[in-house]
Amino acid sequence: MKQEEELLRDGERLDDLQIGGYHIIQNPGRFCFGMDAVLLSGFARVKKGERCLDLGTGTGILPILLAAKTEGRYYAGLEIQEKSADMARRSVKLNGLEEKMEIVTGDIKEAASQFGAASFQVITTNPPYMIGDHGLKNENDALYIARHEALCTLDDILRESRKILAPKGRFYMVHRPFRLPEILAKMSAAGIEPKRMRLVYPYVDKEPNMVLVEGLKNGNPRMTVEPPLIVYHKDGSYTEELLKLYGLSGA
Amino acid sequence: MKQEEELLRDGERLDDLQIGGYHIIQNPGRFCFGMDAVLLSGFARVKKGERCLDLGTGTGILPILLAAKTEGRYYAGLEIQEKSADMARRSVKLNGLEEKMEIVTGDIKEAASQFGAASFQVITTNPPYMIGDHGLKNENDALYIARHEALCTLDDILRESRKILAPKGRFYMVHRPFRLPEILAKMSAAGIEPKRMRLVYPYVDKEPNMVLVEGLKNGNPRMTVEPPLIVYHKDGSYTEELLKLYGLSGA
Repeated sequence: MKQEEELLRDGERLDDLQIGGYHIIQNPGRFCFGMDAVLLSGFARVKKGERCLDLGTGTGILPILLAAKTEGRYYAGLEIQEKSADMARRSVKLNGLEEKMEIVTGDIKEAASQFGAASFQVITTNPPYMIGDHGLKNENDALYIARHEALCTLDDILRESRKILAPKGRFYMVHRPFRLPEILAKMSAAGIEPKRMRLVYPYVDKEPNMVLVEGLKNGNPRMTVEPPLIVYHKDGSYTEELLKLYGLSGA
Repeated sequence: MKQEEELLRDGERLDDLQIGGYHIIQNPGRFCFGMDAVLLSGFARVKKGERCLDLGTGTGILPILLAAKTEGRYYAGLEIQEKSADMARRSVKLNGLEEKMEIVTGDIKEAASQFGAASFQVITTNPPYMIGDHGLKNENDALYIARHEALCTLDDILRESRKILAPKGRFYMVHRPFRLPEILAKMSAAGIEPKRMRLVYPYVDKEPNMVLVEGLKNGNPRMTVEPPLIVYHKDGSYTEELLKLYGLSGA
């Protein structure tokens, strides 16, 4: 952490990811990663030597967590907001991951021409959840862009992912359950067949607020729905599974 | 139950449904209703005065349970297997439900012409779960027909349901989670938009084995996923919710 001082800018802070000794630079005034990213990093499966791309990587949380948890050969992150991409690049450097991680500034809508066809075995994405562009006033509104489909839609993500994925490549996404019919239908239509799904319920007796889904390029239609992922015990403490995902098990 | 003797045939038995004093005639050598039907009867919403149709009613379990639980005006059941339909008709009589319940022998593939367009506010169905017709050898194989899409497919059910449902009519189905992407996509494509879904997990840490789904004719795309429906406690006893659905709460 000796580089910490020179890599942090005003308003930024360094957060310990509790895994692999890795940290991430975040700015509380902009978008900070949430549980979504942590759960997606636990749901995605990356095999030894594979190349992974995260679409809309923000400050790089997914590539960094996956580098800590998996044995992929190369992790790339694509981000349209230069300020976020710059933070992500500094986190890569801070963690000494330059050899196998790259953060690219660019547009998801043109991702396939940027990275090339069939160039990754794994794609992850924690996209904007809200439909449409209802009033983006400022292209620099980082929070708005991260949460709304202002600059790219689910269709854009699936179209580009299909091109970028190698044969039998896998696609991992976290999203909101209220869009599930659309998500599954569009994945199938895009040739990224939904094969595995898990719903995240905050409590065992509450509606789920996230869905994790795995798609297989040109897969056959048959999906496994996994056991419920429950976040909190009734007393509000984290369940064992959540503690493990946060690297806090036994702590 | 004074009619019991004259209404039961060889090999048949009378089962107490634990609700409304209702019973059902079943034959253990043929198809007996399962938890699927009970859960669907608890998931479906029937308002006072509505007309309900059950597609593929078997021995009539859905109409009878719905008559016990809801205030619909009329309940119909369509069944292609005459032996099952006959048992259902005798159960209707046994329960004194002739005034508001009718069991029709017929083919789901021609249901709309049989019942007429826009003739029901509610459709329920507990269809065959398995894809395709892999080896139906005997048209009288009651179990095979109940479990496989030998005589009708999901497409048939959705096409006919759309025609039969009144404007803003609701469609309730129980099915297997492995077909979820196809189910949701086909419902949307048929103009029966998925609006509500619940996954049934046998245990809190196991994969779901059933999915309950509600569709709204010409609805807008936005789905509510409900809390998990968990069947058994870890010790194998029924959860409170299941006991309630079986009319055994507090027993």
